[in-house]
Amino acid sequence: MKRIDLRSDTITKPTPAMVNAMMKAEVGDDVLGDDPTVIRLQKKVSERFGKEAGLFVPSGTMSNQIAIRTHTQPGQEIICEMGAHIFNFEGGGPAVLSGVQIRPVKGNYGIMDPEYVEENLRFDDNVHHAPTALIELENTHNRGGGTIIPMKNIQDIRKIADKYELPMHLDGARIWNAHVATHIPLQEYAQYFESVSVCFSKGLGAPVGSMLLGSAEFIHKAKRWRKVFGGGMRQSGYLAAAAEYAFEYHIDRLIEDHARAAFFANELAQMRGLAVNLETVQTNIVMIDVLSIPAAELHHKLMKFGLDILPVSPTRLRAVFHLHIDDEMTERAVNIFERVMSDEC
Amino acid sequence: MKRIDLRSDTITKPTPAMVNAMMKAEVGDDVLGDDPTVIRLQKKVSERFGKEAGLFVPSGTMSNQIAIRTHTQPGQEIICEMGAHIFNFEGGGPAVLSGVQIRPVKGNYGIMDPEYVEENLRFDDNVHHAPTALIELENTHNRGGGTIIPMKNIQDIRKIADKYELPMHLDGARIWNAHVATHIPLQEYAQYFESVSVCFSKGLGAPVGSMLLGSAEFIHKAKRWRKVFGGGMRQSGYLAAAAEYAFEYHIDRLIEDHARAAFFANELAQMRGLAVNLETVQTNIVMIDVLSIPAAELHHKLMKFGLDILPVSPTRLRAVFHLHIDDEMTERAVNIFERVMSDEC
Amino acid sequence: MKRIDLRSDTITKPTPAMVNAMMKAEVGDDVLGDDPTVIRLQKKVSERFGKEAGLFVPSGTMSNQIAIRTHTQPGQEIICEMGAHIFNFEGGGPAVLSGVQIRPVKGNYGIMDPEYVEENLRFDDNVHHAPTALIELENTHNRGGGTIIPMKNIQDIRKIADKYELPMHLDGARIWNAHVATHIPLQEYAQYFESVSVCFSKGLGAPVGSMLLGSAEFIHKAKRWRKVFGGGMRQSGYLAAAAEYAFEYHIDRLIEDHARAAFFANELAQMRGLAVNLETVQTNIVMIDVLSIPAAELHHKLMKFGLDILPVSPTRLRAVFHLHIDDEMTERAVNIFERVMSDEC
Amino acid sequence: MKRIDLRSDTITKPTPAMVNAMMKAEVGDDVLGDDPTVIRLQKKVSERFGKEAGLFVPSGTMSNQIAIRTHTQPGQEIICEMGAHIFNFEGGGPAVLSGVQIRPVKGNYGIMDPEYVEENLRFDDNVHHAPTALIELENTHNRGGGTIIPMKNIQDIRKIADKYELPMHLDGARIWNAHVATHIPLQEYAQYFESVSVCFSKGLGAPVGSMLLGSAEFIHKAKRWRKVFGGGMRQSGYLAAAAEYAFEYHIDRLIEDHARAAFFANELAQMRGLAVNLETVQTNIVMIDVLSIPAAELHHKLMKFGLDILPVSPTRLRAVFHLHIDDEMTERAVNIFERVMSDEC
Repeated sequence: MKRIDLRSDTITKPTPAMVNAMMKAEVGDDVLGDDPTVIRLQKKVSERFGKEAGLFVPSGTMSNQIAIRTHTQPGQEIICEMGAHIFNFEGGGPAVLSGVQIRPVKGNYGIMDPEYVEENLRFDDNVHHAPTALIELENTHNRGGGTIIPMKNIQDIRKIADKYELPMHLDGARIWNAHVATHIPLQEYAQYFESVSVCFSKGLGAPVGSMLLGSAEFIHKAKRWRKVFGGGMRQSGYLAAAAEYAFEYHIDRLIEDHARAAFFANELAQMRGLAVNLETVQTNIVMIDVLSIPAAELHHKLMKFGLDILPVSPTRLRAVFHLHIDDEMTERAVNIFERVMSDEC
Repeated sequence: MKRIDLRSDTITKPTPAMVNAMMKAEVGDDVLGDDPTVIRLQKKVSERFGKEAGLFVPSGTMSNQIAIRTHTQPGQEIICEMGAHIFNFEGGGPAVLSGVQIRPVKGNYGIMDPEYVEENLRFDDNVHHAPTALIELENTHNRGGGTIIPMKNIQDIRKIADKYELPMHLDGARIWNAHVATHIPLQEYAQYFESVSVCFSKGLGAPVGSMLLGSAEFIHKAKRWRKVFGGGMRQSGYLAAAAEYAFEYHIDRLIEDHARAAFFANELAQMRGLAVNLETVQTNIVMIDVLSIPAAELHHKLMKFGLDILPVSPTRLRAVFHLHIDDEMTERAVNIFERVMSDEC
Repeated sequence: MKRIDLRSDTITKPTPAMVNAMMKAEVGDDVLGDDPTVIRLQKKVSERFGKEAGLFVPSGTMSNQIAIRTHTQPGQEIICEMGAHIFNFEGGGPAVLSGVQIRPVKGNYGIMDPEYVEENLRFDDNVHHAPTALIELENTHNRGGGTIIPMKNIQDIRKIADKYELPMHLDGARIWNAHVATHIPLQEYAQYFESVSVCFSKGLGAPVGSMLLGSAEFIHKAKRWRKVFGGGMRQSGYLAAAAEYAFEYHIDRLIEDHARAAFFANELAQMRGLAVNLETVQTNIVMIDVLSIPAAELHHKLMKFGLDILPVSPTRLRAVFHLHIDDEMTERAVNIFERVMSDEC
Repeated sequence: MKRIDLRSDTITKPTPAMVNAMMKAEVGDDVLGDDPTVIRLQKKVSERFGKEAGLFVPSGTMSNQIAIRTHTQPGQEIICEMGAHIFNFEGGGPAVLSGVQIRPVKGNYGIMDPEYVEENLRFDDNVHHAPTALIELENTHNRGGGTIIPMKNIQDIRKIADKYELPMHLDGARIWNAHVATHIPLQEYAQYFESVSVCFSKGLGAPVGSMLLGSAEFIHKAKRWRKVFGGGMRQSGYLAAAAEYAFEYHIDRLIEDHARAAFFANELAQMRGLAVNLETVQTNIVMIDVLSIPAAELHHKLMKFGLDILPVSPTRLRAVFHLHIDDEMTERAVNIFERVMSDEC
């Protein structure tokens, strides 16, 4: 019986149709600006987000780090939520690559109180401070549990950014999930940000690739940093073709992942020894607090039945629903939990 | 009538006796290792702290930044309290100079819960994380209100450091104040840390100079970074002579600053429109919460009467007692507050 | 008639057989270490070079930069030849990403005199100096004209590295060309270096991908930097499958590129208004000195006849022979030159 | 008999009159902008150089490094002469502190051919290159042998800088020596540069301190970097007072050092086993090529007679004349050389 892999939506493999699209891709040397598929994808995605230009890069981390490098100078500060990917899962990149300090603001499931954002701003007039140069939001918020940043919150933080003339960057690796859940157009989300990172290799199922979006001038500068960071690829049109297919055909289907996540969360919330905050289950991620035993031990027990879920803290497991998980597997995952938890309690 | 300057203990000027010591200093080229006064000071101070070696540097910021540079590698993390000087008042130096990220832990008046420290550790086995390389404490804690980190807390955090084989650095710019307040020997404080920064130009009244203390090997490496950061000075024996005088004669007298701060805090705590958390008034600093008007406005009104106190947030003033503030001035400062606040309410 | 593109061997596109290999690739999430094709390629290539481990990365630049980051610490120095790729074509990466300074040594067509290497070493005992931490060689040497670094030269420089206990890195983006030209096994070249970068997307014709080779411990550390630099890719097995095909089937055929380059160089050497140093035409690159008109102008004229050759300086064009250039195109290229140059003179 | 110390002009100690000036200095907290002596010195020196503002810093290295940091962004390049202090004696600071790469140009005794400068420029239009952001000159040129950069050469390089809109920085640690030797006013030298570093603790004999000069806007930015690098000092007026004395009274007397250096050079040039290029002896430095034995061995022999001269390479000694060397000591130094060399040959 097939293993149920809920570790991450990064594990998804291309469908046959997507592989077929890749195989037929027309390619060229993208470092020399000659790859027609990359050029087309950059145009198509940036238009959909209402941005002037896009830059295809090998990873979501590189997209975020190039954005940070392009927006900031060494000795400045970025404000983001304490659980943000850029602060927790990019290996300290902002300090290494850009010489900038992160001032993390404690949020509520990834959502920052605009008042705290303003309080944490630092200015150039005091040489002791590292002045704020960028405000970053992550939508949906991975560590917050796939939570959607409400439009009102984005707008309120944008007002602060405007007041102090600060740019904003959106880590939109999973903006697709917010979009299908809220029906808010991608362009409407993007308009509040000078730059947006999107990822094709998470929920959308492409093998490799992210894109940084922004003004033509911003992307022109970003292209230099892509080269310096080692992200200039040659015939990357194969990857772009898969990304294009994902962009065309795999966004709408995310709603199915959300439905399965909701079903799964509801079932687990009723099991003894587990706690699930259903309020935060808004997209394809379910955070499961393990009350009776260490999360790592439960992970081990579930693995015996073919269910793989990543522990993200000593007391918490994270389940991510994606392209390869159907209704049957979702139900089976619930059953495995039921069986293991009943043994446990 | 003389202005009362409570902005900081950094403003203190040398006494005539200290100037006399400077004038008689024997000097040499310290970059070449030839300045006898610097050598003697380094030996004297490091012995008093029970460390093998010391390095005289132009500022407390440089001392801390050299320590960070020497302990860490780019892409690692430092844990410190959220209000720490290294995180808030050194211009983002850890990111600029060392490529390291700070993971700030919310403390209680500068005191971190050891459990939170442990929870915030990150390890090398996950390439997404920036692994923790250093734990930093500040004693007394400036932004916490001159609070003293209790010995038990230091010991508990040291146990965690030992468990994970992590070095600890003490920002002891005002360790002298903790020492005279608790009677705990400097060496006893220092034994829990691989490196200690001390400052001669704050409460001790020397014009310029700090010192980094540690093992001989550590200081040997630190010396290279002093040169790279531009802190190699030539005939710095003049500054060292003043620092030596301060070290010999100005530590014990800090107890007077503490008494005046306590008196002042007690008086202000009773005034309408102000709030002072007396629990945190443990050394020479008094944090004054201004309830009725913006702190900047109160600062302005006090200035008219010759009292200069730095606003450290929109609602808070910070008063620092030092060498140049006697009993008369302290009482006068209270009177000025009384007068201004009674006008206010 | 088909355009003749001699700009670079990076422009090569996969053959149908290579595309076929890509599409049949078995993939997984390589950031989680789950991609079987990437794993197999890393094993196969590292074994062929006699190294313990390999790391698949998106570009040759990233491979070199990760090597530099892993070998060095900020404030150290690298010695390389003045025309080296890492010094001239990686956007200042060593300073940006690793905080290291390059001390370039003037060589002869990319070949450094071992004596000069030794003279340029700097040591830790002088705090004014940035101590040498790495010696880098590039073989074949791009800017030198595709020249092969002689084994004797490598051995002599290795002796110096051994004497001072310094590691050596080989930028072997085109080591395949040296190997087929000299019949020296790849492993024999690699044994003199702690780390080797190789590239599948230049002469070998794979679309994207390079590999860093070294000891298991070195590659373990390198993996962290790949993540921080944004080079962690997900289902990169597609790219690895193409690289594997190139590695299996496209090395030996490089000898044909060399033969065409030699023929082309000989013909041009006899034309009035051009100069070609035939001694340096050892592999697939031909440097053409343009004597009568600016190189850019000649480039423009050649383009009118469908021949695209990159000017690499105001007086020099560089022609690179590769997978897509056959005998007919080579002859046609010569004819175009003849025609344009006779108009010229 | 007093040891003759020709190691460097950095070893000079204040005269009694200078110490007297120090002790009478009026001081304040310079980080808060309150030190009247520092303010006065900054005004006086910047006016003399025709610049809007000055910034007092602890060392010449910090002055240069702040200038580099303020002029550049990471990933850019600096052009300077191969023997430049910033490339050879500042511990790799440009890479560590500013993330910039140095492209050194081989000069003639420190003097760069303007044509080579232009050839080595790199531009933003090619993402492979690190674009040039600054041209740096050193006058007098320490490693070149205290040579004076001719005004014509400065003007020619300035034309190139103008053509490409590049700023220029002057490392003028010993610009005083060029000034007294050529009678060219300091302001005339300075007008060709956006920023100038000068040093008070070399030939001028002050104990500690350098100054960075530039436009008001430039110095405003530089002040932030001084703080970040740890160069913010408190009551630095004592050091400024000595620097001011040196600036007032010790510039003109440098002509005596030059005369002694010339006498000494002429004498040594005639000794068997030594070679001195008299053309390069233009100020207070004499480079002595040792032909018969290793320079370190000769250094050792001279030390036995109380003459201390630094070996700067395996075959070269450097003698620097300064405040503490009078005619008698100069003659004695010649005699010691005569005696040791005659034993040798």
